[in-house]
Amino acid sequence: MSMLFERIALIGVGLIGSSLARRIRRDGLAREVVACARTRETIDKVLALGLADRVSADPAAAVTNADLVVIATPLSAYAEIGRRIGPALAPGAIVTDVGSVKSSAIRDLKPLLPASVQFVAGHPVAGTEHSGPESGFAELFEGRWCILTPVNGADMPAVAKLRQLWEAVGSKVVTMDPEHHDKVLAIVSHLPHLIAYTIVDTATNLEKDLQSEVIEFSASGFRDFTRIAASDPVMWRDVFLANREAVLEMLQRFTEDLTALQRAIRRGEADKLQEVFTRTRAIRRAIIEAKQA
Amino acid sequence: MSMLFERIALIGVGLIGSSLARRIRRDGLAREVVACARTRETIDKVLALGLADRVSADPAAAVTNADLVVIATPLSAYAEIGRRIGPALAPGAIVTDVGSVKSSAIRDLKPLLPASVQFVAGHPVAGTEHSGPESGFAELFEGRWCILTPVNGADMPAVAKLRQLWEAVGSKVVTMDPEHHDKVLAIVSHLPHLIAYTIVDTATNLEKDLQSEVIEFSASGFRDFTRIAASDPVMWRDVFLANREAVLEMLQRFTEDLTALQRAIRRGEADKLQEVFTRTRAIRRAIIEAKQA
Repeated sequence: MSMLFERIALIGVGLIGSSLARRIRRDGLAREVVACARTRETIDKVLALGLADRVSADPAAAVTNADLVVIATPLSAYAEIGRRIGPALAPGAIVTDVGSVKSSAIRDLKPLLPASVQFVAGHPVAGTEHSGPESGFAELFEGRWCILTPVNGADMPAVAKLRQLWEAVGSKVVTMDPEHHDKVLAIVSHLPHLIAYTIVDTATNLEKDLQSEVIEFSASGFRDFTRIAASDPVMWRDVFLANREAVLEMLQRFTEDLTALQRAIRRGEADKLQEVFTRTRAIRRAIIEAKQA
Repeated sequence: MSMLFERIALIGVGLIGSSLARRIRRDGLAREVVACARTRETIDKVLALGLADRVSADPAAAVTNADLVVIATPLSAYAEIGRRIGPALAPGAIVTDVGSVKSSAIRDLKPLLPASVQFVAGHPVAGTEHSGPESGFAELFEGRWCILTPVNGADMPAVAKLRQLWEAVGSKVVTMDPEHHDKVLAIVSHLPHLIAYTIVDTATNLEKDLQSEVIEFSASGFRDFTRIAASDPVMWRDVFLANREAVLEMLQRFTEDLTALQRAIRRGEADKLQEVFTRTRAIRRAIIEAKQA
């Protein structure tokens, strides 16, 4: 791989940020990686893991002279980060992010960045239920989508450069309208997480004796849900608040469909149940064919 | 492994039945395995796969002279099978099943079986999203629970013999009250399946353009749900109808919890969301410690 950037500044070094750092350093995609982490504990971990050439607690110091800045923090930190890095960004720098909601990312960041930098929001659709700098790995993005959401007037060379970076780390890159992205992700990712969190919470609220058996006899289904519901609480809190409208709309549709099935169970409508359960198999087959399974 | 039975009759040769057949034959746990399948197609598959010494379409013929009969069909077939095998069972035979709901299994089968046989209902908590005789494998029960639900007056030697069989195929065996079993399974297995079916159905009902992107960008979360929602439609239709009461009760609790989260999202209650998402991690850790993950 050839070097794509001189200095990449990574603001936030969790699962995504640390995976990107590992891959960039492994493949020599930048001459220098500068990381920014908020707590002493994370800074020490980043240094111990050798994820960056330098680590700073100050976002403004971290982005100085960087030709690429990647924001990889929870969404609620974006506005504050924008305020702090805005005046420190080098003219011509590309700024991007990896957040799961794109319209809020653009709303929070764009007005705070100087006209001399190119901002293109992005979202690598990849992750695990683990979090923190120690949980990243260089292959995380391999074969996964990265969705870029340039808005009107976006700088095409900057979009092309980001595409090169994400392809270099193994992703398939696509561009999409930010609002459309948020709708698609609401159903493929945000709603499933909300539901997994809910059912595990329902189990947590059971009578004590039942609860210990839920853990003991945890079967397929519930077990998968607990894995999803172990995902980072702060990141997901921010996702639901930032994508409120799309999540609530998908949740409304889901609740209607669930109520219909509940009614079919109560009334003993065997045919209706079998019909739905047969239909859902087709989607699984389509996903396997799309090689996303 | 030593031989535990002379002749085992398997009524139904799907994922569970065929996995049991493979293991019994591999380890010589019975002198003879007789299978019963309903369709010509399944009978041919069972013969081609070498899963049984003999295959019959007639349950009465299959159970003749068997010292163990295992019913492994969808729950809605139990009453009819009971009627047909009742008069053909050998005195002293043990009859069991592998269904996911135990109170309905006992209600449907017990009255139809002669007093001279020992009926003990059972449930191996194991499975995959695949179905049919070709999808079974000898290791399916390895390390998984098998729950036996003997009722008052159950024959203890019969329970002990079944325990031996399930331990021989790799399971950890526990006994439980049938109604309690149905409650525990409602939350760890039945409700998660119902929810997975629902969300995949919600995606199926989306506008066509959104739907194709749901398949393309299917992320963790939704992907796991589609796997669960690809499970056998007839088996699951029967489970929800047979365990109606417990499933509806758990569904009610789930809906309340989901509504509370929906309200927190709508009102922007960040602390409340974070608190729930943090709590759910503890259950995951407990499951990992219980070695069920």
